[in-house]
Amino acid sequence: MNRVYNFNPGPATLPLSALEKARNEFLDYLGTGMSIIESSHRGPEFDQAAKDCQALLKELLGIPEGYHVLFLGGGASTQFAMLAMNFIPKGGSADYINTGTWSTKAIKEAEIIAKCNVAASSEDKNFCYIPDKFNFDTKAAFVHFTSNNTIKGTEWHNLPPTDKPLICDMSSDIMSQQIDVSKYSMIYAGAQKNLGPSGVTVVILKDELAQTANDDLPTMFKYATHIKKDSMFNTPPTFPIYMVKLVAEWVKEQGGVAAVEKVNRKKAQLVYDAMDNSDGYYRGTADLNSRSIMNLTMRMKDEGLEKQFIAEAKAVGLHGLKGHRSVGGIRASMYNAFPLEGAEKLVDFMKKFKANN
Amino acid sequence: MNRVYNFNPGPATLPLSALEKARNEFLDYLGTGMSIIESSHRGPEFDQAAKDCQALLKELLGIPEGYHVLFLGGGASTQFAMLAMNFIPKGGSADYINTGTWSTKAIKEAEIIAKCNVAASSEDKNFCYIPDKFNFDTKAAFVHFTSNNTIKGTEWHNLPPTDKPLICDMSSDIMSQQIDVSKYSMIYAGAQKNLGPSGVTVVILKDELAQTANDDLPTMFKYATHIKKDSMFNTPPTFPIYMVKLVAEWVKEQGGVAAVEKVNRKKAQLVYDAMDNSDGYYRGTADLNSRSIMNLTMRMKDEGLEKQFIAEAKAVGLHGLKGHRSVGGIRASMYNAFPLEGAEKLVDFMKKFKANN
Repeated sequence: MNRVYNFNPGPATLPLSALEKARNEFLDYLGTGMSIIESSHRGPEFDQAAKDCQALLKELLGIPEGYHVLFLGGGASTQFAMLAMNFIPKGGSADYINTGTWSTKAIKEAEIIAKCNVAASSEDKNFCYIPDKFNFDTKAAFVHFTSNNTIKGTEWHNLPPTDKPLICDMSSDIMSQQIDVSKYSMIYAGAQKNLGPSGVTVVILKDELAQTANDDLPTMFKYATHIKKDSMFNTPPTFPIYMVKLVAEWVKEQGGVAAVEKVNRKKAQLVYDAMDNSDGYYRGTADLNSRSIMNLTMRMKDEGLEKQFIAEAKAVGLHGLKGHRSVGGIRASMYNAFPLEGAEKLVDFMKKFKANN
Repeated sequence: MNRVYNFNPGPATLPLSALEKARNEFLDYLGTGMSIIESSHRGPEFDQAAKDCQALLKELLGIPEGYHVLFLGGGASTQFAMLAMNFIPKGGSADYINTGTWSTKAIKEAEIIAKCNVAASSEDKNFCYIPDKFNFDTKAAFVHFTSNNTIKGTEWHNLPPTDKPLICDMSSDIMSQQIDVSKYSMIYAGAQKNLGPSGVTVVILKDELAQTANDDLPTMFKYATHIKKDSMFNTPPTFPIYMVKLVAEWVKEQGGVAAVEKVNRKKAQLVYDAMDNSDGYYRGTADLNSRSIMNLTMRMKDEGLEKQFIAEAKAVGLHGLKGHRSVGGIRASMYNAFPLEGAEKLVDFMKKFKANN
């Protein structure tokens, strides 16, 4: 097998050891004589896997008492609607901070459902920075933000200054660095970047916020349903949950979130240094103090050169470097499982490409 | 590997060849140097898998022109709410037929959202039959029914007699037998019985019905969103979709739906004959003319004996025979991938158990 360096923004590269484990036990899970994907979601084997997964996430992320960890289907995009349906009271409103494509989508959904105040936005500069001036509404039920902007390459380095319940779409940087979960009332993340494959969304929900939810909603769209049944109200996406468990085990083996954060910062530093020392050949698109350590975005002189860069990189085993179709350019997504050597290879390639072109 | 006979009701047994294929290419999908679960949902490899899956379902099920085939997250339970939100017009109503646990849940969701008329029900006899008398509302937007009742062991053998758009929850018997899709306006099915693993719901939606959908809904809950983006509005559950493709390939290799239907009927006949020839030792719970060929339910003299039956069956490699926790008894779920030999083994075991107890 010739494993490539996979810079895909999600679904993304996963730890080889987790993939190997899944492969090795795929036909016969723990001697049950069946695959994990054939196991009943109510049987003891899957139940244990789901409970282990939950416990590992609690341990690794330092989730305190008083929080629920849920595994839901439908992607983070479903959460945009669900959280607004649940947590904006009738006649009430919520504050949203707009830092890019995904925040904009979250706002759009909230506006379909209720009143929504954009407390800050970096749209004026094509979302190249994280705002530091806020116009919070004292009556807002919560403040929503997107911790890392996969497409624009920016990331929050401090929390929004508010005492309101904080709700965070952490899809693209969950578990990449140490955070204080107790500062958040809700964190949600599609698994397909740092946690596992696509098909499951992890929701970390403070019971205090959960208690405030509206009640007159379809059963599947109420967090209360999934809390009550510990994510087993209906058949959950069993294979994605099982994979999240294997990935979490890998994080633990690495030494936990502090250890992977250290590597993540090193990978990002290497590539940002290569940009910053290129005399403007590679231009980072995010403001210096808003840069993401997960998704590193840059532009070159013209689109033709970018196209050539992406094609030649692929030819040497550096895959998935194309920027999001909505912004173009180059994007190196380097989540937890992306190896340090891959970042080093990219830096080498950037230098050689510059020398040759 | 000691593969057991897996009578689980879902997630359920899958074709060994499909599992082996997934296992063999799990670390390197088509020479891409990455797993299918690491592949971008917008890349050519997954895109091809999803398109192939769609095309195979169309071919195998005989889906005519004018229908969309969608892959959605959230399980069939999410469809209960979504279909009512989309297709019951403001101030309008829909007809539902209640044949068991899942119909009851579908009705409950519709009632949260709009007006809903129960046009027929078999609740009077604990759902042991499929109704043949209906009280349809001429103003109903559609008629909803559940083609196979996993828990109660009943199945429709003729369609409800109506000219209204038919919406069918086909989760537990889709692709098990030939049907005329053109008679339906919408078919939906959680994959985890006949189609693949849990985590994806297949929705087959007639464009004519799709056109009537309400518009003022959250984006993810509008079928129009998923039709427009061919199930790629957000990141879909890629691994489950890929597995559905492999399972569909297996069905095609068997000779298509007609061929698997023949085996399904044979399996069911074997086990029903064993019940019916047991002098009441094994009592089928479904009315003779409402029996399911997928989920075969029976009771024995007392719960102690049932418990013993289930435990001894497991000891000889016949797993998952326990009835649903809400009804008890014994249930043999034998979906497409469940082998004929498994049904034969069960019949042998039933005879021996009767002789010994």
